[in-house]
Amino acid sequence: MKNDQNQQVILTSRPQDIPQAENFELRDGQRRDPADGEILVRNHYLSVDPAMRGWVSDVPNYSEPVGLGDVMRSIAIGEIIESRHPDYAVGEYVSGLFGWQEYAVTDGSDISYRVDPADGPLSASLGILGINGITAYFGLLDVGQPKPGDTVVVSTAAGAVGSAVGQIAKIKGCKTVGITGSDEKVERCRTAYGYDNALNYKDPDWRAKLAEYCPDGVDVYYDNTAGVISDEVHSNLTVGARVVICGTASVSSWTDWPQGPRIERHLLVKRARMQGFVIFDYADRYAEARSELAQWIRDGVLSYDEDILDGLEHAPGAIARLYAGANTGKLLIRVSDDA
Amino acid sequence: MKNDQNQQVILTSRPQDIPQAENFELRDGQRRDPADGEILVRNHYLSVDPAMRGWVSDVPNYSEPVGLGDVMRSIAIGEIIESRHPDYAVGEYVSGLFGWQEYAVTDGSDISYRVDPADGPLSASLGILGINGITAYFGLLDVGQPKPGDTVVVSTAAGAVGSAVGQIAKIKGCKTVGITGSDEKVERCRTAYGYDNALNYKDPDWRAKLAEYCPDGVDVYYDNTAGVISDEVHSNLTVGARVVICGTASVSSWTDWPQGPRIERHLLVKRARMQGFVIFDYADRYAEARSELAQWIRDGVLSYDEDILDGLEHAPGAIARLYAGANTGKLLIRVSDDA
Repeated sequence: MKNDQNQQVILTSRPQDIPQAENFELRDGQRRDPADGEILVRNHYLSVDPAMRGWVSDVPNYSEPVGLGDVMRSIAIGEIIESRHPDYAVGEYVSGLFGWQEYAVTDGSDISYRVDPADGPLSASLGILGINGITAYFGLLDVGQPKPGDTVVVSTAAGAVGSAVGQIAKIKGCKTVGITGSDEKVERCRTAYGYDNALNYKDPDWRAKLAEYCPDGVDVYYDNTAGVISDEVHSNLTVGARVVICGTASVSSWTDWPQGPRIERHLLVKRARMQGFVIFDYADRYAEARSELAQWIRDGVLSYDEDILDGLEHAPGAIARLYAGANTGKLLIRVSDDA
Repeated sequence: MKNDQNQQVILTSRPQDIPQAENFELRDGQRRDPADGEILVRNHYLSVDPAMRGWVSDVPNYSEPVGLGDVMRSIAIGEIIESRHPDYAVGEYVSGLFGWQEYAVTDGSDISYRVDPADGPLSASLGILGINGITAYFGLLDVGQPKPGDTVVVSTAAGAVGSAVGQIAKIKGCKTVGITGSDEKVERCRTAYGYDNALNYKDPDWRAKLAEYCPDGVDVYYDNTAGVISDEVHSNLTVGARVVICGTASVSSWTDWPQGPRIERHLLVKRARMQGFVIFDYADRYAEARSELAQWIRDGVLSYDEDILDGLEHAPGAIARLYAGANTGKLLIRVSDDA
C-alpha cells in the first residue's frame, strides 16, 4: 500500500511582530496524487528567510499573505518522484515555493529553477546559489551599481545575504564595511567573508567606528535592517550614493508604522538614491547570477556557511531563531533522510 | 564724477527656520571697478528661491552657507556695463550668482549663461527659462523618467517650479495631479497650468481626493515639500514608482531634525526609487533645457506667471513671502529702472 502521509507546518495565527513557534502547528496531512500536467516533489531542504515575516503579515505586501490554516509558504528544494508533466522528469531536482511540508504537488508554476547536483551540495541551491546569493548579486550589482574603489557598507553583514554582498563587493574592487550584531560575527565578517572592517552595532562606540571605517563616506549602502543602524549610515552618504533597500529586519512591526528621521534632506544634499527591490522581479535572470556565483565558489573567492536543522519539527521556531541572530550561516530545515 | 554707489542686502543673523526681513539689512555699499579679467554687471532682476533658506543655514548643505555680513547669495540677471574680460562684451546680458545688490563684479566664474533678449522678456530667464524651468525639466525628465500614461503628482504645484513640472508632464503624455495650499491655487493649477486634477492640502478631505485623482496610484512624485503631504503620496506609489526630491518646503527647520514614517517598506514593497538632485549638477546641460522650454513657450503649450516686486527694499522680506505662499508666480525683485 502506498504511503500518502505528508507532514506539514500550518500557519494558525498571525504574529504581532516576529513569527514564533506558537503561530504554527505541525500537522499530519495527506499528500495527493499529481493530476495530469502536475508533478510530485519530495522536499529535501526547506529555506528559512527574513521575508517570511512579511509573508505571514496581512499588511499590504508584494505578495498575498499566507492564509490561516494554509501550509507555510517557503522556498524549498526537492526531487521529482512522480511526473505527469511533459517538461519534468522523475529524478530531476527543482527549487520553488513548495512550502514547509514533506511533499508538494505542483503544475510547475511555482518552480523557480532546475538544480544540477553537479553545481554543488543541494542545500547550496537554497542559499548561496539560491535566493540569498541571487538577492545579494542583483541587489548589489543592479541596484547598488558599485564602482571599483567605492566604500560599500552592508547591514546584517554576516547573514546569508549580507555575507555574499560583502564578498561580491570585494570581488568588484570595493572597500567593504560590515555591520552586525555580535563580536563573534564581527570576527567572522573579517576572517570568513573578507570585509575590510566590521563593527558590532551593540558596541557603544559603533557610530564612531562607522565614521572611522568610512573616512570618505559611504558610496553604496546595502540595507537589510532599516532603523537606527540605517539612520546612522544615511548621515555618512557621499554625493551620488546609492542605498539598496533589501530588507527591514530591525523593524519588528509595520502594523504600528515606525517613525524615524526624515530622509529627504540627505537624499537632496547628497543627490543620493534609495531604491527597493524584490528578487522575484529578476526571475528571468536567475541563471545568469547562479552561473557567476558558482564560478566564484569554484575560484575560491566566495564562501558561505550553513546552519541546518534536522526535521520539520524545527521549522515553527526557525523564523524567530533567524531574527534572534542565533543562526550561524544560512538557516535550513532538512526534511528528507536522503538529503 | 562716477557714481560708485551699490545698494546691497546683507545677511546679518541666521534664522531659526524661515528667513525673515529682520535677518537682513539694506546697506549703501560701494561698487568697485573691475580688475583685469573681470566684468561689472548691473543687475536688472534678482531671483527669490526656496533654496535660499538652505543657503543661509549653517547646517551642512550642498553649498557653503552665506557668511554673516556678506551680500545675500542670489541668482540674478543683468547687463554687462564694463568689461576687462576677453570673453564678455559691454551690452551683453548674463545670468549668474550676482547676489542681492545693484552691481556685481565677477571674473565670470559665477555666470551660469548668457541671455539672448530675443528669447523673451529678461525676467523669464530667471524663471521659466532659468533656474525654475530648468529644475522642472531635469528633475522631471532625467530623475523622474515619466512614461506616457503615467500619473505624475506634483507638490507646490502652482509654484514656479511645480507649475512647469505639471505642464512638461502633460506635454509628455502623463496624467497630472497638483497639490497646493489654497483653493485659488487649485483653480490656477487647473486653468492656467493644465493639471488634470488639483487639490488643496488644507482641505480636510485632501487624502481622499488624492486617492480619487490617482485611482491607479502614483508613478512619479515630484516632491517640493516633504512632510505629511509626501507621507500620503508615498502610501499611493505604484510598483516601480520614482520619487524626485527637489525641495523640502514643508520642513521649517532641519536643525532639530524632523521625524516621520519610515520610508523603507514603501520602497521595498513597491520596488520604488527616491532620488535627490541639485540643479547645479546639470550646469553643462542648461542650454538644452532652455532651448526646449523656449520652444514650448513659442508653441503655446507652456505658460508661466511672475510676481515682480519693485525695488531692493522688498528683498529682505521676500523669502518669507515665498514660504507663506503669498506670491502668485515666480517671485522676482526688479532693481533697475531700465528693466
